[in-house]
Amino acid sequence: MPTYRESGVDLHAAEELVDQIGPAVQKTWNDRVVGGFGGFAAGIRIPPGFQEPVMMMSTDGVGTKVELARVTNRFDGLGFDLVAMCVDDLAAVGARPLAFTDYLAVGAMRPHRDRALIESVAAACSAAGCALLGGETAEHPGAMPIDAFDLAGAALGIVEEGKVITGASIQIGDLVIGVESPNLRSNGFSLVRAVLGDVDLESLMDDGRSVGEALLEPSVIYAPAVLDAVATGAVRGLAHITGGALPGNLPRVLPPACSAVIELGAWEVPPVFRYVQDLGSIPEEEMFRTFNMGIGFAAFVGSADAAEVQAVFAGHGHRSWVIGEATAGEDDRVLFV
Amino acid sequence: MPTYRESGVDLHAAEELVDQIGPAVQKTWNDRVVGGFGGFAAGIRIPPGFQEPVMMMSTDGVGTKVELARVTNRFDGLGFDLVAMCVDDLAAVGARPLAFTDYLAVGAMRPHRDRALIESVAAACSAAGCALLGGETAEHPGAMPIDAFDLAGAALGIVEEGKVITGASIQIGDLVIGVESPNLRSNGFSLVRAVLGDVDLESLMDDGRSVGEALLEPSVIYAPAVLDAVATGAVRGLAHITGGALPGNLPRVLPPACSAVIELGAWEVPPVFRYVQDLGSIPEEEMFRTFNMGIGFAAFVGSADAAEVQAVFAGHGHRSWVIGEATAGEDDRVLFV
Repeated sequence: MPTYRESGVDLHAAEELVDQIGPAVQKTWNDRVVGGFGGFAAGIRIPPGFQEPVMMMSTDGVGTKVELARVTNRFDGLGFDLVAMCVDDLAAVGARPLAFTDYLAVGAMRPHRDRALIESVAAACSAAGCALLGGETAEHPGAMPIDAFDLAGAALGIVEEGKVITGASIQIGDLVIGVESPNLRSNGFSLVRAVLGDVDLESLMDDGRSVGEALLEPSVIYAPAVLDAVATGAVRGLAHITGGALPGNLPRVLPPACSAVIELGAWEVPPVFRYVQDLGSIPEEEMFRTFNMGIGFAAFVGSADAAEVQAVFAGHGHRSWVIGEATAGEDDRVLFV
Repeated sequence: MPTYRESGVDLHAAEELVDQIGPAVQKTWNDRVVGGFGGFAAGIRIPPGFQEPVMMMSTDGVGTKVELARVTNRFDGLGFDLVAMCVDDLAAVGARPLAFTDYLAVGAMRPHRDRALIESVAAACSAAGCALLGGETAEHPGAMPIDAFDLAGAALGIVEEGKVITGASIQIGDLVIGVESPNLRSNGFSLVRAVLGDVDLESLMDDGRSVGEALLEPSVIYAPAVLDAVATGAVRGLAHITGGALPGNLPRVLPPACSAVIELGAWEVPPVFRYVQDLGSIPEEEMFRTFNMGIGFAAFVGSADAAEVQAVFAGHGHRSWVIGEATAGEDDRVLFV
């Protein structure tokens, strides 16, 4: 006489988790949130100041960065990775993050880990200015290794009609401002894991941090800074540098007959990328095709406006550099020189 | 000299998939959608008729129903399961589904399977009246078995302020209308898999269908019917019968000092539930605690309004029954008699 619990699904543990995470989740709620914790769905009112609001959605996961978190028992950064992946896609179209939902799939529930993961999602939502409206924690006994987990989510944002940043207004000669990412964000970790082999993740790097700590450093959330940059009126195109890195993401906003020339050496590639490269003898081109190499977000601006926009990023604590410019033609959409 | 591709992530295959699914995804888009396919995020305008719109979100996955799909190579129903899980949670608070994003995690990409999955999500979005605004297909080499996959998503809905259905207005004596689910929807599959053992999923059941076909029958999407029922003004509480079944979901909308008495025998339990029960010698109580047992959605209405609301469901092709009523007290929140 099997029961659902014996088949590997523990509804009681799931309820306990919901009780535990309640305070952290509700801390992300502002007075625009509608609905109670534990209902079928919660909602958020449109903030003031929008005449013709467009509601934008984005979704992403944190990829196999979860595997490094699993083996090093470091879970409190992954929520920042997840929220950054989603809300910075919203910011890349000029949308302000409003709300978030998370999805956690597990082989079996691990109360300490699962609570740490969801509390980090909640903390990241607060940092991004959005309300964590809901979530799902799903046990997949047998279908996932018992200690495995996966973390994904979806973000809701808002932008005034006609103010969506598409890149269509990018002009030849516009400068590309690259905003610093001190780490890999949440991309390229399958390659990282392939080259790590049996490297001890607790061994120390030159900067005194462990390998695991450096690789798991949480992603920067750019959205608040990007939206302030957009508010200057100077931004003509935005790219969130995720999977596919600079060569994969800049073309998503370049208008037809327009390319980007990126000057290698215009910024400092953070040491963690060189560590991974050396470990795997990875060719330079493959590195720039797979990893952000220190540029997590890019903005296209007229040359007269670059200083103003860089000052906005600096005001949020993000270093930035002019890393290239928009050029005519589309033979090489992204040319490294 | 490893490359990202050699580490198990094939960005080219991912781009091909995006190209293939484009037409199906864009078919879900109406003239309120803003943004292009392939951008960082897409959006949707608020439909006309809302004075103070509240934007609601819900998220869910399809659980380990994916495992039965995997072993029987039947993928075209799972999108309906996914969209039903999410949009029917929105409908349960009276919100109209507007938009959707999907998240597909795979051990390795399988072009035929992945395309079938996402096209089924798109078809289900069309059935639910919502636009598929985005999605993520993530390869997790090494972290997931190579043939494994997981499917989750998030839905955005809209409801007028003050018209959120919370159950707060449920009164003692209100009737519970149960709406038919001919199958398990997407819940309880870990128990199903535990009792199936080495049963041949191609073997035939009494109704001539194979076991795999019966178990994988897609979930009904109730949202369009539920919203028409809500429009009658007669509905005081709604419950989407998902994980935790009737005893777990009815209490989510019952007001304090109010319970529900459910009359066993008021409706027909579909044969697929009895098949699973017999196979595993599962106690009756465990069946009703784990599976919907033929009731996928419940509505609380005043006794004078039951016929009108049932007629709405019938108009959408859903059978329904009066399965119980709201009673005083909260010793047994859901009592089966």
